[in-house]
Amino acid sequence: MISQKEQFEKASGVMPGGVNSSTRFNKAIMMPFYVSDGKGSKVRGVDGKEYIDMCCAHGAGLLGNAHPAIDEALKKAAELGYVNAFETVWHEQLASLITETVACADKVRFCSSGSEATMHLIRACRGFTGKNKILRVEGHFHGYHELIYIGGHPPLSAFHSNRIKPYIESAGIPEEFSRLIIPLPFNDEEALEEAVEKNRDETALLILEPVNFNCAGIRASDSYLKLARKLTAENNIVLFFDEIQSAYKKSFGAAQNELGIVPDVTTIGKSIGGGLPLSAFCGKKEIMDCFSPLGNVQHSGTFNAHLIPVLAGLAFMQEASKPYFYQKLKSLEDQFHDGLNKIIADNDLNMVVPNYGARFNILLGRRYPANNYEETFCHNNKVFLNILKDCFERGVYFHDYGGGPSHHGYSVQHTQNDIDTVLNVLKEALIKNKPDFSNE
Amino acid sequence: MISQKEQFEKASGVMPGGVNSSTRFNKAIMMPFYVSDGKGSKVRGVDGKEYIDMCCAHGAGLLGNAHPAIDEALKKAAELGYVNAFETVWHEQLASLITETVACADKVRFCSSGSEATMHLIRACRGFTGKNKILRVEGHFHGYHELIYIGGHPPLSAFHSNRIKPYIESAGIPEEFSRLIIPLPFNDEEALEEAVEKNRDETALLILEPVNFNCAGIRASDSYLKLARKLTAENNIVLFFDEIQSAYKKSFGAAQNELGIVPDVTTIGKSIGGGLPLSAFCGKKEIMDCFSPLGNVQHSGTFNAHLIPVLAGLAFMQEASKPYFYQKLKSLEDQFHDGLNKIIADNDLNMVVPNYGARFNILLGRRYPANNYEETFCHNNKVFLNILKDCFERGVYFHDYGGGPSHHGYSVQHTQNDIDTVLNVLKEALIKNKPDFSNE
Repeated sequence: MISQKEQFEKASGVMPGGVNSSTRFNKAIMMPFYVSDGKGSKVRGVDGKEYIDMCCAHGAGLLGNAHPAIDEALKKAAELGYVNAFETVWHEQLASLITETVACADKVRFCSSGSEATMHLIRACRGFTGKNKILRVEGHFHGYHELIYIGGHPPLSAFHSNRIKPYIESAGIPEEFSRLIIPLPFNDEEALEEAVEKNRDETALLILEPVNFNCAGIRASDSYLKLARKLTAENNIVLFFDEIQSAYKKSFGAAQNELGIVPDVTTIGKSIGGGLPLSAFCGKKEIMDCFSPLGNVQHSGTFNAHLIPVLAGLAFMQEASKPYFYQKLKSLEDQFHDGLNKIIADNDLNMVVPNYGARFNILLGRRYPANNYEETFCHNNKVFLNILKDCFERGVYFHDYGGGPSHHGYSVQHTQNDIDTVLNVLKEALIKNKPDFSNE
Repeated sequence: MISQKEQFEKASGVMPGGVNSSTRFNKAIMMPFYVSDGKGSKVRGVDGKEYIDMCCAHGAGLLGNAHPAIDEALKKAAELGYVNAFETVWHEQLASLITETVACADKVRFCSSGSEATMHLIRACRGFTGKNKILRVEGHFHGYHELIYIGGHPPLSAFHSNRIKPYIESAGIPEEFSRLIIPLPFNDEEALEEAVEKNRDETALLILEPVNFNCAGIRASDSYLKLARKLTAENNIVLFFDEIQSAYKKSFGAAQNELGIVPDVTTIGKSIGGGLPLSAFCGKKEIMDCFSPLGNVQHSGTFNAHLIPVLAGLAFMQEASKPYFYQKLKSLEDQFHDGLNKIIADNDLNMVVPNYGARFNILLGRRYPANNYEETFCHNNKVFLNILKDCFERGVYFHDYGGGPSHHGYSVQHTQNDIDTVLNVLKEALIKNKPDFSNE
């Protein structure tokens, strides 16, 4: 046993910031959260303290920690010798399940991370159309790489210049790449029409999150999605839904199935691997067949679709296809949101908590869901970090992504008691910090 | 049980080319090799046939299939609940082992794939220097992404134009990216001096494989490495060794330790995860500390350094640090290369088989190792594919990477008998195909 602080110091000596992912530094506690183990809905810190896990691996942990189905998958992988870098029947079975459950998926490929998935699929969109520009939506997130980590989350100071000179979100990304990005306000049909009209001859794709989990849980309006589908179809622009977060979160399929708008291509990630490193990208045959060896777009890698995550993925799909699965998640959802909405109403809290299935966003500073990125600047990051810190001190772990109105959630192993505890803890933290929810 | 052909047809219906990695399509057999399971040095096809595995997960499988140390790591991961997306003491322990064994490594970070490792580390080099251009070497490979999958392996028809207009190696990569790439001939000191002189104010890094596993196993000359070290140090250019393939392949450390030239940064991959999806990047403190939250270079991802591969990585490191490990690999190396060199000499074969530890290249069409990429155009791809096909039909699996003089190898679980069998099979295949080794 070791204190969080001591472990932070040790880890910082050999890893920048003591982490393997910059966002694992949690500003609410001003250090990363070091964990020793987890079971079901709980994780235990290196100091022995137990927490209810409301991070759930940023949305990948829909099965929770230590799920029996994943334990079985690990055993099976060991028995098979895990035969890394080869294809198996299990790859084909998992791909088949995706084609059956995601509306646009004629064909599928797997890789390890969400960033790899968007990178390869953007490449295919460019290869397919012979064009290079990307229409993207403010507040949406599509991976930490040079193709698209631009123009998505400008700070307030760069908000207005973002549409003229897209904001580069990491040092080390050359400006040349930002010239290929066209940021758009979410749910703004006029802006979308104008941008397509102006850039259609250079634009390869329009990418968006149908549910904007990476900023305040904003939903695309029906008419916006319809227009997006129409304009892209008319102008040889690939319509790309990034469903890394939304797929399998509410039902055994993607958000596109429910929304009734079928994009050309889609990325799927997070929960698909049952908590192991697996992502997928899929789409219409004519675009997917651009990939080598059929076409001339490259997608290769020793660790793509490793057998262990693939077997875990099959285990997840088998579990999620059982009737109890989304019923259980729905009952937790009802309990959580009914409870939280009551707390909000009873205490006249200036906040809103939109959700899609088992994942939700907390947006401070307004009483109705935002409609676009600009409307989320009301969220007071500092107060929000205080709230998360108060919850942490009382045994509820919400992950911090820099204080923004990002996503949190629960797993199928969470219990009614867990949700009760979370609501009680959250209630006190919210009331304590109530005066300053809005930046305005 | 199903035939390879039937499985290929089923898989092709749901995945482009029936694979999750373009290079898994094996031109020697004109389909991917579908596997059911593996044990030690052997893999079994879906049709029940057994093969000696000379692919070894493209170099990641130094422990072979189904190694007891990895089985234990999987069990431990299950007991701990695998707590995805959190940091643990095991992350810090594995990072510490790398700082102790890789010369340039003050600090380390982990991610899933080799491509992710080079991508993030190139970003840090740019962030650190404030410059954008990349000096790279022809024939070297650094991942399948837009930053660097350019100018490395031009076909003969594009060889001469490559240094003026770097060859883009996949459809869908915009030309904007190629303008930042400066391809150089390997081991050419004059060309290196000229390029640095001309581009030093714009160049962020010089990246190379100290052992060019991805083309004919060409070694960097001592004087070339010395010059590279000197020129980069003098001109604020980061010296980047890509040791994804060479680290831990010959000894418990990186090639840089043996070569005596310490770069500024290094990528490590393949075998480090014991056959599971894990890569690392490391380097001097002042560059690594550019990563957020210390600096402003982003490196994030839910699946970065997942606990299962991290525990497998620790298992690999513990195994590889035992005295038997590199002794065993060395005895297989001696047996294989003594045997093969005798076959080459006895039969007057126009070929050479350079190696570095447990991994080797087969280059047809010349009797001495090549010194640069241009000298490998003698390799007759068509004949080479015939050789690999003959071996496959007799139960020895060499992976094909498009017919080029790429890398193959064995694991610590391979036996003297395995090597004897491989030599016998290879001997017959070589003699049968002998007349046409050279393209010239």
